[in-house]
Amino acid sequence: MTVLTDAERAELIGTAHELADAARVETLRHFRAAGLSADNKETERFDPVTVADRASEEAMRAILARRRPDDAIFGEEFGAKSGTSGLTWVLDPIDGTRGYLSGTPTWGVLISVADAVGPVFGIIDQPYIGERFSGGFGVAEVSGPTGTTRLQSRPARALSEAILFTTFPEVGTAEEGAAFRRVSRAARLTRYGMDCYAYALIAAGQIDVVIESGLQSYDIQAPIAVIEAAGGIVTDWQGNPAPQGGQILAAANRAIHAEAMALLNG
Amino acid sequence: MTVLTDAERAELIGTAHELADAARVETLRHFRAAGLSADNKETERFDPVTVADRASEEAMRAILARRRPDDAIFGEEFGAKSGTSGLTWVLDPIDGTRGYLSGTPTWGVLISVADAVGPVFGIIDQPYIGERFSGGFGVAEVSGPTGTTRLQSRPARALSEAILFTTFPEVGTAEEGAAFRRVSRAARLTRYGMDCYAYALIAAGQIDVVIESGLQSYDIQAPIAVIEAAGGIVTDWQGNPAPQGGQILAAANRAIHAEAMALLNG
Repeated sequence: MTVLTDAERAELIGTAHELADAARVETLRHFRAAGLSADNKETERFDPVTVADRASEEAMRAILARRRPDDAIFGEEFGAKSGTSGLTWVLDPIDGTRGYLSGTPTWGVLISVADAVGPVFGIIDQPYIGERFSGGFGVAEVSGPTGTTRLQSRPARALSEAILFTTFPEVGTAEEGAAFRRVSRAARLTRYGMDCYAYALIAAGQIDVVIESGLQSYDIQAPIAVIEAAGGIVTDWQGNPAPQGGQILAAANRAIHAEAMALLNG
Repeated sequence: MTVLTDAERAELIGTAHELADAARVETLRHFRAAGLSADNKETERFDPVTVADRASEEAMRAILARRRPDDAIFGEEFGAKSGTSGLTWVLDPIDGTRGYLSGTPTWGVLISVADAVGPVFGIIDQPYIGERFSGGFGVAEVSGPTGTTRLQSRPARALSEAILFTTFPEVGTAEEGAAFRRVSRAARLTRYGMDCYAYALIAAGQIDVVIESGLQSYDIQAPIAVIEAAGGIVTDWQGNPAPQGGQILAAANRAIHAEAMALLNG
């Protein structure tokens, strides 16, 4: 674990916001534009990579090259760049490209910086709404259309009173879908389709649990930082730290995390 | 059908915006507030009615009492008030209360004014984003974080290239769900969870088809006005006008409407 001075922390926070500002410009330049070009990265699932996705990551990498040349980078679009500082920036220039292509305000820019243990600061930014959730180094706040407020995840409540989110109803494999539905049947309300915005809603104290599978490190490191700064918890489905992604169980507090995990594995 | 002068149309448009402004204040007053109280209107499905829902409709009714005393009103929360003008305001103070309670930016305020045939002007307002879609009387526009632009639904494309939305994966009855899945399997991408925002995305030219069932008049009259003003089409699953709700098929153009309807009934 890297020991950072207050000045170094402030520099990292400032860098993260500069990245988010730059990504906002690039992603909004093309959002809802007609004739958006989209390649298929995968043949089987519809996962378009847009011009905006690449431009957004390029803009962030240019800032890091100038401001943090010794840090490593791992980004969705352009992969890994090694570093010597012990810190790694993990970037998803557009999380939720299918939401982006559909015009929904649920995609986001995910930015985090990690040491050897995991993410230490993260941002979930929704450029169209103009809303930014940030967490780490003593910060846990959202700035948006109605001002800036502190993030605080919900206190414990029974799963039968809780709100559960996932993006795709099928969740993953048939077995993963069945595990999800065991939790869903016990929850008060299940909602779909929010992309990374669902993680922000845990941090904002609006919902209780998010369950997903098949995630990459760049999908989850920023949510981990923001949710944990707000008092929540993010692990894999076995309760282990999950900075590399995979099966994700994010929860507002330890009690509901335990209740959901028991059903996932039941 | 009521024949309206330009001045009368302008007065109706102005009234609709005043209603939306008032509803914005009332809905945002409670959005994401801790401890939101929620009654269950139905015992079986989770359909909370919030303080905000009632306050929003009351604020709109107060404006209509002053400004449009001779018009009828039909609102989700407080039902019908008769009138003598031949015009009826149809109000859903918060469409998507479950989205509202979850903190998502996908619920909306639905406002429309109808003559004997159906809605002639409508607004879909998303107060948190500060985004307003309006259509009718020659207007088809969205005002939001990135300015004001004209609404224009998408030109025809094959369903295999199209984006389909519904709010709940189960859609309705087992039979309705099966009909939906016939369309979904043929579409390029299916997304969930957007509440009334999905109808706005058709008008904005972002998506191609929305299919839902079990809707009420106040859920669909404003979307009908906005989508049709933008060049789209909204009917029931048999292709009939659907101002009373029920099974809804909303589409960006007639070609994809026909392709989706054939599968719904296939």
